[in-house]
Amino acid sequence: MATTEAKLRKEIQNPVSHSGSKVTIVGAGQVGMVVAFSIITQNIASELTLLGVTEDKLKGEMMDLQHGLAFLNNIKITAGTDYALSAGSKLCILTAGARQREGESRLDLVQRNADIFKGVIPKLVQHSPDTILLVVSNPVDLLTYVAWKLSGLPKERVIGSGTNVDSSRFRFLLSERFNVAPVSIHGWIIGEHGDSSVPVWSGVNVAGVRLRDLYPAAGTPADVEGWNDIHRQVVQSAYEIIRLKGYTSWAIGLSVSMLAVAILKNTRNVFAVSTFVQGTHGIEHPVFLSVPCVLGENGIINIIRQTLTEDELDQLQKSAATLNKIQSNLIF
Amino acid sequence: MATTEAKLRKEIQNPVSHSGSKVTIVGAGQVGMVVAFSIITQNIASELTLLGVTEDKLKGEMMDLQHGLAFLNNIKITAGTDYALSAGSKLCILTAGARQREGESRLDLVQRNADIFKGVIPKLVQHSPDTILLVVSNPVDLLTYVAWKLSGLPKERVIGSGTNVDSSRFRFLLSERFNVAPVSIHGWIIGEHGDSSVPVWSGVNVAGVRLRDLYPAAGTPADVEGWNDIHRQVVQSAYEIIRLKGYTSWAIGLSVSMLAVAILKNTRNVFAVSTFVQGTHGIEHPVFLSVPCVLGENGIINIIRQTLTEDELDQLQKSAATLNKIQSNLIF
Amino acid sequence: MATTEAKLRKEIQNPVSHSGSKVTIVGAGQVGMVVAFSIITQNIASELTLLGVTEDKLKGEMMDLQHGLAFLNNIKITAGTDYALSAGSKLCILTAGARQREGESRLDLVQRNADIFKGVIPKLVQHSPDTILLVVSNPVDLLTYVAWKLSGLPKERVIGSGTNVDSSRFRFLLSERFNVAPVSIHGWIIGEHGDSSVPVWSGVNVAGVRLRDLYPAAGTPADVEGWNDIHRQVVQSAYEIIRLKGYTSWAIGLSVSMLAVAILKNTRNVFAVSTFVQGTHGIEHPVFLSVPCVLGENGIINIIRQTLTEDELDQLQKSAATLNKIQSNLIF
Amino acid sequence: MATTEAKLRKEIQNPVSHSGSKVTIVGAGQVGMVVAFSIITQNIASELTLLGVTEDKLKGEMMDLQHGLAFLNNIKITAGTDYALSAGSKLCILTAGARQREGESRLDLVQRNADIFKGVIPKLVQHSPDTILLVVSNPVDLLTYVAWKLSGLPKERVIGSGTNVDSSRFRFLLSERFNVAPVSIHGWIIGEHGDSSVPVWSGVNVAGVRLRDLYPAAGTPADVEGWNDIHRQVVQSAYEIIRLKGYTSWAIGLSVSMLAVAILKNTRNVFAVSTFVQGTHGIEHPVFLSVPCVLGENGIINIIRQTLTEDELDQLQKSAATLNKIQSNLIF
Repeated sequence: MATTEAKLRKEIQNPVSHSGSKVTIVGAGQVGMVVAFSIITQNIASELTLLGVTEDKLKGEMMDLQHGLAFLNNIKITAGTDYALSAGSKLCILTAGARQREGESRLDLVQRNADIFKGVIPKLVQHSPDTILLVVSNPVDLLTYVAWKLSGLPKERVIGSGTNVDSSRFRFLLSERFNVAPVSIHGWIIGEHGDSSVPVWSGVNVAGVRLRDLYPAAGTPADVEGWNDIHRQVVQSAYEIIRLKGYTSWAIGLSVSMLAVAILKNTRNVFAVSTFVQGTHGIEHPVFLSVPCVLGENGIINIIRQTLTEDELDQLQKSAATLNKIQSNLIF
Repeated sequence: MATTEAKLRKEIQNPVSHSGSKVTIVGAGQVGMVVAFSIITQNIASELTLLGVTEDKLKGEMMDLQHGLAFLNNIKITAGTDYALSAGSKLCILTAGARQREGESRLDLVQRNADIFKGVIPKLVQHSPDTILLVVSNPVDLLTYVAWKLSGLPKERVIGSGTNVDSSRFRFLLSERFNVAPVSIHGWIIGEHGDSSVPVWSGVNVAGVRLRDLYPAAGTPADVEGWNDIHRQVVQSAYEIIRLKGYTSWAIGLSVSMLAVAILKNTRNVFAVSTFVQGTHGIEHPVFLSVPCVLGENGIINIIRQTLTEDELDQLQKSAATLNKIQSNLIF
Repeated sequence: MATTEAKLRKEIQNPVSHSGSKVTIVGAGQVGMVVAFSIITQNIASELTLLGVTEDKLKGEMMDLQHGLAFLNNIKITAGTDYALSAGSKLCILTAGARQREGESRLDLVQRNADIFKGVIPKLVQHSPDTILLVVSNPVDLLTYVAWKLSGLPKERVIGSGTNVDSSRFRFLLSERFNVAPVSIHGWIIGEHGDSSVPVWSGVNVAGVRLRDLYPAAGTPADVEGWNDIHRQVVQSAYEIIRLKGYTSWAIGLSVSMLAVAILKNTRNVFAVSTFVQGTHGIEHPVFLSVPCVLGENGIINIIRQTLTEDELDQLQKSAATLNKIQSNLIF
Repeated sequence: MATTEAKLRKEIQNPVSHSGSKVTIVGAGQVGMVVAFSIITQNIASELTLLGVTEDKLKGEMMDLQHGLAFLNNIKITAGTDYALSAGSKLCILTAGARQREGESRLDLVQRNADIFKGVIPKLVQHSPDTILLVVSNPVDLLTYVAWKLSGLPKERVIGSGTNVDSSRFRFLLSERFNVAPVSIHGWIIGEHGDSSVPVWSGVNVAGVRLRDLYPAAGTPADVEGWNDIHRQVVQSAYEIIRLKGYTSWAIGLSVSMLAVAILKNTRNVFAVSTFVQGTHGIEHPVFLSVPCVLGENGIINIIRQTLTEDELDQLQKSAATLNKIQSNLIF
């Protein structure tokens, strides 16, 4: 006798087993979950898989996301510890890893997280050999390098979320000072995500009006108007938010979802993301640092060559040397 | 010497030649263009191709769409008369064809438009053998049959926009009477798109409260409250709007873009679309008529078996017989 | 000498001090923050205020939200413990209160949270006398009553989030069984949010096809197909998610943001929300319970009168009596 | 005996007669209708009124828009020739007027359209004394002046759509050359909308990298790389699209809807819009020309003072003199 479901439906064919725009997120912590929620609510992907280490947590988050689908375009959501669930992903986003503790530098985290990546990256690539890897875990520049090495993927398919969120913080803080919407303020922070990030003051502009043309000392040691404070606040932001609420989540999660849009939709938008910069800006080491990049369905399409000052180049190269030194000592 | 573009960009790789979610629209008339605009603004696809017969018109529409991209997520837009432009489409939407004239029945259009389809469908399928065809041109049920025959595609991959827009008109008119948002009113019009469409009064409900439970005569000959007028208005709508403004565009264009979302995003939403109904509701003829269907990335996944009255079944079967008779006389 | 900001901008007028669609959220816990994030990303409001008791937490959440604004339409975000910040709100959403503990019934929480509301509601209404209050804190039906009493507002302007999220869970679970998108499944859970909620099986339908017409025993004691399990799962969901991940957040937060859309945009959508039901469905007590309601800019516009069975009416009336008894013992 | 509607609904209160974010569009031509459709689909407003001169056309467009509401957030749509329909509008958008003919200069249209405005503006302001006027009709700079004079509104509440669409065309064409998404290309066209518009080459940048720093001759007479052609194409765009498809609609309609978002949502975004520029950039005449402006709920909040070359200032001042001369001869 027919079940009720069978009475309702005349079967024509099976649904596809894996849809065309599948995303896997590794790590269901605060950041990973905001990335997941942002991807679901923005209607970017047609399938989302959460991977992690704790079945209970993963199941709870999956259920909680699923229970909101009556308000959204439907998306298939799966979760678990079995990497076979991720098969056929167009994009894998890595948010797993030990979280930065209050006062801890990003660099201290690296070996711990590299060890975690050894158990993650090869399995992801095995199930999705054509995927793009987007690394969010910190220290992001080093871990993007680690992910690249472990994956065997071409370097343009391994991307770190890098200073995209630093740049959005920079733009917000500038917008407060200018009393103009952040989307109408343009400014870029490049280099290492974290304490050594480099604000490119020469490019800061509103409607094409450069801050430096209005006030040439902006961001220099001679600056008496306090613009340097804005970069200092950007650097302090993560530490301060961790102190205030325990972790950062909304801005980083949203910023990563924007990278996902650019990749899945092949938009060719420019974002500051961590990419392989050997041979760019005089960097000789094989490291990943953030520079403005054009993103598409196949990963990094171009690097935008910014015009940097001697001082900015020097900072980038120092970051590169520091990262390279750490990388050389990493065991993986 | 390097060009300015080369100075700006360090090339990492070429963009993909065809992105993962490409849509082709055949016909750049009022309907086709609202479909195009809705797809672009809803950020559904990453590539859109407009095909038609008049290079000038196509180029003008393409430019006009492109000039809005600074306000939207980027999408590659191409247009022209060469079907090679459509290569790799996931979805091809057919809006081409002679337009219904004031007072003209949908059935009168069929042979004229079947002839047009002979020059279109084989070329689309040649360049996108895995595509789904979504037919909007009228008379849509007959032309979906024609498209199926000409394409050689499996029947679940050839879909007509059918009574999706009739159903949305029905829901709007009911919403006016109930003073409740149209999305909160549920009602379905099935069968033939046009004069012979069948309102399924038994399913009309608000929050699960059936109109027929409140007023059993609703939609019957005994109805003194005028609910039948609402179906009459739906049938007259297209004629009336054509009389008032010359054509219909917004609702049909938007409704088609919703089908595109369901297909491209693999959502499994239910829409009333024209599908092959031989063997459903006692229909013996090999025709396409609208019934509620579950849509996914591979086309029609299920047909929802509505519980219909004798009278409703009779109307459907009569429509099927009429369509079949016309089909038998079509030359293509 | 002019500052750099003054050089950039020619002042024409001051921005408005309070914009036309301001929302205040009281409580920056997991639920309140998902409501905040959903409101910001959906571009519903032009100003958002977070109120709470811990300055640090509030400041951290505010900063984290603000840092994402470079990716969104701009919105003014403020946060703090001073209720003057909420002045001029169109909508105040209450998520504050002690959280439901694992295994704790919703009813146990009430006096604790009523005491909290005594310190909140009068101050909200003082600063926004024309606001609508949307209560999310649990036990939501009792606390909506408390908010109504404390506010002095007309009853149609005090709304509880009620069984809106229960209904979305119900629809998701039904969608899993039917393999159809949740938005295409219609079903309502009414009454008390929580253990005593009432699934209205008679209204469950897909495309107007009633589950009960396919299987009359669905949801009755005679049901051997297990549909009752779905309601049981809905009731268990909150407890299970709390057990698995510690709290519920995504679905409840998103569901509340949908109510905010309906109110701020005056959409007249139907949602199951907690409203004053004395005189409805034979309820004689002055209590708040969820029934489907039409929402608009001025709050509840209509209650949809569902056709309920004796058993369903009986359950509602029992819930009403239980709530009334607790209300009578509340001190506030 | 109760009607079916009364059986379904328990009335709690009447809906609000005018909601908080109402927009009126005057003119239901190709541009006005794309503005209307964009506003409806972007969920910006809660009420939309179409005003015009032809009842039939207006009714047809209204019905066609309404029939799409089952797919969207609900919005109240009205249309007609009676200006009382527009009462309580926050924003009135003027698209009425004789359309620019192929080959006709924008200036030729002015007296014809000023006469039309005499019959429109006073009635709009009578019914919505606190409205903002957004003028789209061409020649837009002159007609914004006319609207200001006829309205008696403060100058910051009368805005012309100006070179916002010229700037978006500019950004699209630059994006084609750089192969980067238009949203990631920054460039501004200011001054008079049309043949005398001024591209501000000094501000053109990608990720803060100025085109002029890469190629100092860009946009000058010495330019051998053809950047000037891009401005020439922008100027020719409107003419060419009119030649190719008969009118422009999508980009201008979408660009105007973006201004509506900024105003209704109080975003403080910067757009190039036509504003009163006497006293800015050395302009002595009381004219409206486009410069980058910060937009909010109360209209123009700031003008961004761009750093212009002598040549650019000269062009602006010449445009101002030309417009002033025409204005002096206008009879209204």
